[in-house]
Amino acid sequence: MAIRRVGFIGIGIMGGPMAANLLRAGFELTVWNRTAAKCEPLVAAGARAAGSPREVAAASEVTLSCVTNSGDVEEVALGADGVIEGAAPGSVYVDCSTISPETARNVSRRLAERQVAMLDAPVSGGDVGAKAGTLAIMAGGEADVFERCRPVLQAMGKTVVHVGSSGAGQVVKACNQVAGGLNLLAMAEAITLARQAGVDPAKMLEVVSAGAAGSWMLSNLGPRALRGDFAPGFMVELMQKDLRLVLETAAQTHTALPGTALVNQLFTAIEAEGRGQDGTQAIVDAIGKLSRGPGG
Amino acid sequence: MAIRRVGFIGIGIMGGPMAANLLRAGFELTVWNRTAAKCEPLVAAGARAAGSPREVAAASEVTLSCVTNSGDVEEVALGADGVIEGAAPGSVYVDCSTISPETARNVSRRLAERQVAMLDAPVSGGDVGAKAGTLAIMAGGEADVFERCRPVLQAMGKTVVHVGSSGAGQVVKACNQVAGGLNLLAMAEAITLARQAGVDPAKMLEVVSAGAAGSWMLSNLGPRALRGDFAPGFMVELMQKDLRLVLETAAQTHTALPGTALVNQLFTAIEAEGRGQDGTQAIVDAIGKLSRGPGG
Amino acid sequence: MAIRRVGFIGIGIMGGPMAANLLRAGFELTVWNRTAAKCEPLVAAGARAAGSPREVAAASEVTLSCVTNSGDVEEVALGADGVIEGAAPGSVYVDCSTISPETARNVSRRLAERQVAMLDAPVSGGDVGAKAGTLAIMAGGEADVFERCRPVLQAMGKTVVHVGSSGAGQVVKACNQVAGGLNLLAMAEAITLARQAGVDPAKMLEVVSAGAAGSWMLSNLGPRALRGDFAPGFMVELMQKDLRLVLETAAQTHTALPGTALVNQLFTAIEAEGRGQDGTQAIVDAIGKLSRGPGG
Amino acid sequence: MAIRRVGFIGIGIMGGPMAANLLRAGFELTVWNRTAAKCEPLVAAGARAAGSPREVAAASEVTLSCVTNSGDVEEVALGADGVIEGAAPGSVYVDCSTISPETARNVSRRLAERQVAMLDAPVSGGDVGAKAGTLAIMAGGEADVFERCRPVLQAMGKTVVHVGSSGAGQVVKACNQVAGGLNLLAMAEAITLARQAGVDPAKMLEVVSAGAAGSWMLSNLGPRALRGDFAPGFMVELMQKDLRLVLETAAQTHTALPGTALVNQLFTAIEAEGRGQDGTQAIVDAIGKLSRGPGG
Repeated sequence: MAIRRVGFIGIGIMGGPMAANLLRAGFELTVWNRTAAKCEPLVAAGARAAGSPREVAAASEVTLSCVTNSGDVEEVALGADGVIEGAAPGSVYVDCSTISPETARNVSRRLAERQVAMLDAPVSGGDVGAKAGTLAIMAGGEADVFERCRPVLQAMGKTVVHVGSSGAGQVVKACNQVAGGLNLLAMAEAITLARQAGVDPAKMLEVVSAGAAGSWMLSNLGPRALRGDFAPGFMVELMQKDLRLVLETAAQTHTALPGTALVNQLFTAIEAEGRGQDGTQAIVDAIGKLSRGPGG
Repeated sequence: MAIRRVGFIGIGIMGGPMAANLLRAGFELTVWNRTAAKCEPLVAAGARAAGSPREVAAASEVTLSCVTNSGDVEEVALGADGVIEGAAPGSVYVDCSTISPETARNVSRRLAERQVAMLDAPVSGGDVGAKAGTLAIMAGGEADVFERCRPVLQAMGKTVVHVGSSGAGQVVKACNQVAGGLNLLAMAEAITLARQAGVDPAKMLEVVSAGAAGSWMLSNLGPRALRGDFAPGFMVELMQKDLRLVLETAAQTHTALPGTALVNQLFTAIEAEGRGQDGTQAIVDAIGKLSRGPGG
Repeated sequence: MAIRRVGFIGIGIMGGPMAANLLRAGFELTVWNRTAAKCEPLVAAGARAAGSPREVAAASEVTLSCVTNSGDVEEVALGADGVIEGAAPGSVYVDCSTISPETARNVSRRLAERQVAMLDAPVSGGDVGAKAGTLAIMAGGEADVFERCRPVLQAMGKTVVHVGSSGAGQVVKACNQVAGGLNLLAMAEAITLARQAGVDPAKMLEVVSAGAAGSWMLSNLGPRALRGDFAPGFMVELMQKDLRLVLETAAQTHTALPGTALVNQLFTAIEAEGRGQDGTQAIVDAIGKLSRGPGG
Repeated sequence: MAIRRVGFIGIGIMGGPMAANLLRAGFELTVWNRTAAKCEPLVAAGARAAGSPREVAAASEVTLSCVTNSGDVEEVALGADGVIEGAAPGSVYVDCSTISPETARNVSRRLAERQVAMLDAPVSGGDVGAKAGTLAIMAGGEADVFERCRPVLQAMGKTVVHVGSSGAGQVVKACNQVAGGLNLLAMAEAITLARQAGVDPAKMLEVVSAGAAGSWMLSNLGPRALRGDFAPGFMVELMQKDLRLVLETAAQTHTALPGTALVNQLFTAIEAEGRGQDGTQAIVDAIGKLSRGPGG
C-alpha cells in the first residue's frame, strides 16, 4: 500500500525545500524543527506542526530528518523525545544528514530492536538541487525498505540509488566529498597556473570545461571564483566537517587518501583567513596565496 | 580569401584522423610522416604525399603538425628540411603537439623573421575526439591569424577557442592536464574508499557522477577502471610527459601545484609496475595499492 | 620545602620505568594501576600500592600519571575515585600522557577549583629513555609550580623544559610528533630512492647521517629498517593516535600541515597491511610499496 | 706511490676553500677558474694558475672540479680545452659538483676510453664545512681508484665514503637532498604549529631538538628561522636545482617520492616571493603563509 503520511525533522536550508517538495507531491506532511518558527511557511502550505520528533514519528509512516551532525541524529532518533519513542513497528526512519557510517549503523540497529527500519540517505546537490527536486540521493539499508520509500525519495531527488546495506549511503556520501574536494583542487590549480602564466583564466575554463578535463565544479564554481564571487553554494566549514568524517571513515577502513588529506589542509588555509563561511570555490585562494609575490 | 591548400606533418594516432577530417572537409591536403607508409590511407583518399616538411610547407597556405615533443617540433619547424625552408611569406604554421610554451614562443619568433605566422594549438579529446572531429582546440597566437585559420581548426574540433598570444595555447593545455590529472585522482580515491568500506563502487559511480562531484573522468574512465579495463584512451607515460612539462612551466612561473605534483608521483607508482602504456585510469591502482593488505 | 611524597598512576611500558626512577631518586612513592599486578616490582622495590587514584593523590604532594588517552586522563583525574577527590589543596597533579591541549586545559581548570595545580608534561624518548632517565619532558602550567616539581621531573628526564602555560606541554608534544613523523618520511624516501637507483642504502645512511641531512630517526631507525627489524620502539598505531590529535589541534588553530597529513596517510597504508603494532620505521614500506614492480 | 700533484677547476664558494685545504695538506696544486681573478688568493698561497682545464689535467695526477651543473661538467671534462684533452692515462678526474647520475656515468665512460678514471664525489656540509674541511663526501667509482684518492678527499672532508660504482655518489647526494628537504619541512610545520597554538617556538625547538624528533636542520636552521635570519647557508634556488635533479632521477628509476615533491612545490612558493636567494630555512614562511590570517 502506498505511503501517504510522511514526517520531516530539521527544517533548514536543505530540509525546508525538501519538505516543501514532499508537500507538493501530495504527501500528508508533519514537521518539527528546534526553532519552531521555521516550520511556518510549510504549515501555511498545508503541513501540520508537531511538538517533538516523537510526535512526528507517531503521525508518520515514513519519518525523514536532515540535521547537522552525528550528535543531532542521535538525539532526534534515540533521545527521550525522539523518533524511537513514537514510531510504530513497521514504519521507516530516513536520515538525510551527512554523518558517519558507524553512527548510521548504530542508530539503525537500535531502531530495529523496535521493528522500525532505517535508511541512511544523504543527498548531494546543494540548496539549488533541494529546491528544484533534483538532488542525488544515495540510500543505504534493506532493499525492500528502499523500494517502499522510493516514491518519497523521488519527490525530492532526480537520481535516487540504493547503494547497499545500512551505512552504505554515508560511505557513498563520503566518496562524493572525496571526489568533489579533489575536483575543486583541480579547478584551483588550473586557474592559478593560467593566471601565473599570463593567460586569461576565463578562456581556459571555456575550453577545458568542454573536454576530458571537464567537471561540474569547473563549469559551475570556476566562473564564480574568477569573478571573486565567494558566496556559498556549500560552505568551507561544512565541507571541512564532512572531510573530517571522510578521513575518519578512511582511517577506520585503512584507506590512504593522500589527495583528500591535502584538500582538507588547503581548506584550513582558507579558514585561517576567517573565511569558513565562504563557498568551497575559495580553495582557489589557498593555491593562489602559495604563488603570490611579496606584495600579494 | 578562404584557405584551400593545407598540409599535415605527423600522421599518428592523433594526426591521422585529424588529417582525414581536413580531407573530408574539402581541403587540398599534402602530408608527410617520418614513416611514409602511414600516409598511404590518406593518399588513397586523395591527399598528396610530400618528401619533407619543407615540401609540405611549400605546397600549403596552412601547415599543421602533430608530433611527440619539443625536439620534434623544433626539427619539423626549423630543421634543415623544415617548414621554415619551404613556407611562403604570409603562410601559417599551426602546431597541435603538446610542448612547452617556451618552445612554442621560440619557434614562433624564428618563423616570424621569415614572415610566417604561427599558432600553438594543442588539442584535448583523445583519439576518439580526433576521429569524431570533436576535439577541444586551444590556440595561442595573433587574433587575425586565428580567425584566418578558424575553418581549418573547425574541421577537426568542436570547441575551438583563441586563448591568447603565442604560447597561450600550450599554457591552457597545461591547465587541462592539471585539471584532468586531479580529476583522475578524485576518481581513484573515491573508488578506493568505496571498495575499502565494502560498498559497490559501481553504485557509487552511478550516483556521484550525477551530482556536483561529477566529472568527465568519473563518468567515462571510472567504469573502465572498475571492470579492470586499462586499455589506453591516453597512456600513463604520455600523461607523465605532459605533467613534466606542466611542472616545468609551473616552476618557471613560480606556481606551486601540490596536487599536481602528487598526481605525478602516483603515476610513477604505476610506471614502477611496468604499466606506462596502460590508460590513465590505472591511477586507481596507485591509490589502491596503498590500502592493500599483506596478501594484496 | 622539598617534595618527598610522590604518586604515580599508570604503571605501563613508560610509567613503570619512570616510577622506578622516582623511587631510585629517593622519593616516597605510592602507585596505582588498573591491573594491580603491574605494581608488584615497584612494591618489591619499596613503593606502596594504593587502591585508587584518589588514594594515590591523598598520599602525595605530587601525583603523576601516564595513561593512554584523553578519556583515561579525565577518569583518572576527575572520576568518582579520581585524583580530584583525594588531592589536598596545594598539591600538584602532573600528567605525562599525550592528550589534546584542550583536555589538558579543561582538567587543569577543574582541579584549580579545588586549589590543586596541574602541569601537562608529556615526554619523548620512548621506553629506552624512560628506563635510562633521559626523557625529554615538555611541561605546561604555572612557572612556580614547574619549579617546585623540577626535582621530580629531573629524576625521570634529562631535558626538562617549562614551555608555557597550561596546555603548552601538549602543544609542544604535538610539534614533536610533527617533526618526528616528517623525519621518518625523510628516512623512508631517502632509503627507497637509494634502493631503486641501485645503491646500497647502508652506505647512504652512513654518509647522509653525518651531514646536514642527518636526524635522530635516520641514525637510529634507519639501520633497523634496512635490516628488516620492525620491532617497535614506538608503534605505528600509537603514532597514528598522536597524529590524529596533532591534526585536530592544527584544525582548531587553523594551521595547515600538508606534510604531516601526508605522513598520517602513509602510516594508514602500513595499518592496511595489519602492521599497526610494528615500529614507526615501517613507513619505509609505505613509500617502498609505491615503487614496487608487478611481482613486488 | 702517493699522489702529490693535484688540480682544482672551479674556484667558487665551495671550490675555493676546498682547494685551499688541499694546499694546506701539502699537495702541489694547479688551479683554473672561468673568472681567473678568483684564483689569486690560492696563487698567493702557493698554487699555480693554469690557462684551461686541459692544462690543469696535464699537470695533475688527480684533477678535481666543483662547478654548477651538468652542462658545466660536460664542458670542463669533455670540451675542446677540457680535462680529457690533457689528462695522462692512469690519472684520475674527481667531480664534486651535484649533477645527474646519468651525466656522471656518461662522462666517466668517455674518460675511460682514454684510460682516465673518474669518481663522482659530491659533497654535503656547505661553505662552513668546506672551510673547516669537515665535508661529507660520497664517492662513486672503482674501489681502487677511490682508495688511491682517499688522501686527497680526506684533506677536504671528515666523512669520506665510497658508496658504489660510477654514478652512486650522485645518487647518494640525491638521497641527501631528499632527507634534508623533508627535515626542513618538519622544522617548518613544527614551528608553525607552535606559533599558531600560542606557544613560544624557541622553547619548542629547545626540547624537541633534544629528543627523537631532533635533526641537524632543527638544531641549526630552526633558530635562524625564528629570529628571521634568512641569510643563506644553502640558497633556495640551488636546493630547487638539486630537487629537480632528484625528481628526474626518481622518475627514471620509477621511484614515487610524494614528500619530496611537496617540498619542491613549497620552495616554489618562496621563489614566488622573490626569495630564491634566501637560505632554505625560508620554507618556514611557505607553511606559515598557508596559516596566515586576512591581515597576515
